[in-house]
Amino acid sequence: MTDPLLADLQKTIEGEIPICAHMGIEVDSYDQETLTMRAPLAQNHNHQGTGFAGSLNALCTVCGWGRIYLLARELGIPPRIVIRRSTIKYLRPVDQPRIIARCLPIDPDELSHFVAMLKEKGTGKIDLHIEIADAEGPAVSLHGSYVVLADH
Amino acid sequence: MTDPLLADLQKTIEGEIPICAHMGIEVDSYDQETLTMRAPLAQNHNHQGTGFAGSLNALCTVCGWGRIYLLARELGIPPRIVIRRSTIKYLRPVDQPRIIARCLPIDPDELSHFVAMLKEKGTGKIDLHIEIADAEGPAVSLHGSYVVLADH
Repeated sequence: MTDPLLADLQKTIEGEIPICAHMGIEVDSYDQETLTMRAPLAQNHNHQGTGFAGSLNALCTVCGWGRIYLLARELGIPPRIVIRRSTIKYLRPVDQPRIIARCLPIDPDELSHFVAMLKEKGTGKIDLHIEIADAEGPAVSLHGSYVVLADH
Repeated sequence: MTDPLLADLQKTIEGEIPICAHMGIEVDSYDQETLTMRAPLAQNHNHQGTGFAGSLNALCTVCGWGRIYLLARELGIPPRIVIRRSTIKYLRPVDQPRIIARCLPIDPDELSHFVAMLKEKGTGKIDLHIEIADAEGPAVSLHGSYVVLADH
């Protein structure tokens, strides 16, 4: 990982959130539109050997959080980000050895509005869609509402 | 913990779901209506020192799962339980040293219907409400839809 922003995100996640370190979450890739993170099934399985719902949710939640973290850092805004609510669907068991979550691209109009709010007020709210998919399509789908808090 | 069913639930959670062991999840109490589970903040904090959203979700998810596990075991039905979907609201930061999740009592009519389905068909679906609360009221509220799968 040569991008210093991604290295910083990785360090924050695994250094400051102990459960993320135990989950083995790694920042995978980022192309300014899509952020992917991964975690090994070996550390995140349930009693049936498939992905533990709590781990799948945590991976998706952190992936969305990371997406806004990167955006805030790019804009030079303090990354004080919280998730307010989320809805998750567990569509099929996850059984790949590497679980990969992908924060899907944000609608350009919504992103522009969000960035404008961040620049003007240092705060804003945005809805993100994060998926864990395999060759058959999505297995887990999370919609989360994230907020950047003003830096008081 | 003297109740063998609760001891069995504890053993299943911490023995077969590695992240639950890392989270330090413990079955706290059960009175046939309300199940509570706890986890220490020390192992489940985020970068701001409050409860990590992924851990809070996982604790609530497992608490609901455990509620149905106990019910299935009491009925002598194989506890093949999955969560299909959930919606969570993070209302306030969680900063108690012991995070306590409570699966709230199920509406008696819904519970009767669910038990009847389990007895007749060995399968059924039920919605549960799990909360993490403190003296000020709920800080996290999760509604989850759980399914007991038929034992093929």
